[in-house]
Amino acid sequence: MQKRTTFVISDRTGLTAEALCHSLLSQFPSVQFDIENLPFIDTLEKAQDLVTTLNTLAEQNNQKPLVFATLVNDDIRKIIADGNVVFFDLFDTFIDPLEKELNIESSHSVGKSHGVLDFAQYSARMSAVNFAMTTDDGMETDHYARADVVVIGASRSGKTPTCLYLSLQFGIFAANYPLTAPDLENTEMPDALEPYRNKLFGLTIDPYRLQQIRQARFSGDTYASAQTCQFEVAQTEAIYRAAGVPYVNTTKKSVEEIGAYILHKASLRRKI
Amino acid sequence: MQKRTTFVISDRTGLTAEALCHSLLSQFPSVQFDIENLPFIDTLEKAQDLVTTLNTLAEQNNQKPLVFATLVNDDIRKIIADGNVVFFDLFDTFIDPLEKELNIESSHSVGKSHGVLDFAQYSARMSAVNFAMTTDDGMETDHYARADVVVIGASRSGKTPTCLYLSLQFGIFAANYPLTAPDLENTEMPDALEPYRNKLFGLTIDPYRLQQIRQARFSGDTYASAQTCQFEVAQTEAIYRAAGVPYVNTTKKSVEEIGAYILHKASLRRKI
Repeated sequence: MQKRTTFVISDRTGLTAEALCHSLLSQFPSVQFDIENLPFIDTLEKAQDLVTTLNTLAEQNNQKPLVFATLVNDDIRKIIADGNVVFFDLFDTFIDPLEKELNIESSHSVGKSHGVLDFAQYSARMSAVNFAMTTDDGMETDHYARADVVVIGASRSGKTPTCLYLSLQFGIFAANYPLTAPDLENTEMPDALEPYRNKLFGLTIDPYRLQQIRQARFSGDTYASAQTCQFEVAQTEAIYRAAGVPYVNTTKKSVEEIGAYILHKASLRRKI
Repeated sequence: MQKRTTFVISDRTGLTAEALCHSLLSQFPSVQFDIENLPFIDTLEKAQDLVTTLNTLAEQNNQKPLVFATLVNDDIRKIIADGNVVFFDLFDTFIDPLEKELNIESSHSVGKSHGVLDFAQYSARMSAVNFAMTTDDGMETDHYARADVVVIGASRSGKTPTCLYLSLQFGIFAANYPLTAPDLENTEMPDALEPYRNKLFGLTIDPYRLQQIRQARFSGDTYASAQTCQFEVAQTEAIYRAAGVPYVNTTKKSVEEIGAYILHKASLRRKI
């Protein structure tokens, strides 16, 4: 199997570069990539130290490392790009054509995609996080009037991370409510949720995956049995269908995907 | 002021494309960009509908919209790229040179950067989120033996979102402990934290920003007074310095930046 040492190099957090790098490299499943994220390379000295390491590595491995970079400063970028590396410039590649299209020069200041937020944005995010924490797991249902969305589903179907993600990433007020045994005796909407039908979004999950998750902590419990998991999943889906609640199957989705899907499908307005 | 209608188009969540788009466009502060994220464009039909809309818009505005795309499928990409748009291909731009460098063809399957996680990764994330929730705001300090990091700081300095972000993004077990009035009477480390000194990471904040945050909810309280905020910030920093606790000023940083900084500075090993 081909192996390639790979570095993600950025003057900031490197989160964007890292995500794009993973996305690109996932297109080459037959190669084993050893990926390291090197954030905050924001001085000439750090760049020079780093390129020395990269050059040594290239010589040792007799192979140039792959470098995916988002470096705004021209001098820092040049130091790395001139090293003994295969350089993929995720940032500057697009700056030239953007300058031509917009007919103005770029500011060449360090990117703000994960940067300074204004106070309104900061507050929006904090409020949303606090709301998600306060209303987690069916607590404080009297706060639902302020919710943008109320995520419902069986226990361990992924409600909490989904709501935290919606709050952190988009500033969405996301409460969550577990559909537990008493709620699942019939397909009627629980009383606490009835007034908020238009804010509900359901999660469902493959019953075998649910069982796997529950058994990891509650092995042997009825709660973690195949029968219970199958019944609960079938019954939650029946409740969603009876009430016309939109829902998503979380089994093969990451939290990012579930969050982006709910935002999209429920036409929620992001606040950050 | 120049205005440009801008679309981020992706076959998945579009989160990576959106972050890179914002980062690139932040280099042109004199242009007013109206940015819309259009995720899950994953069928030829959706692409055709979308390009019709884009073409209409180009005609109405007498200006081509900017399009930043991560579209893996060649046919879908071609439909959008052939529209009356300025097309920035954040994905395919790098696939050709990668194919040449690796000397293999790419799989052309829809990216996995925010995609399917295996069960171990799913569990790691869930466990980390549960840990952050359980140990929020100084609760359950007896769990600190399992923590990767214990984030400390004055009330409202950003501990909770930081820990949730560390858990969601990196699978880090992050507890947080508020340094409150009794802890701030001297510069000694609170007893509950003493055994975990090597896991501590401090947050500090500009006292005026702290006051602004506290006043938003507790206007008039001593808690939100300039004097209290100045004292608490000075005293928390004195505690950090006395104990040699690394710390970061959160005033001008986003949660992503604070999280990435702590991961980097504390040399934490990410689990996802």
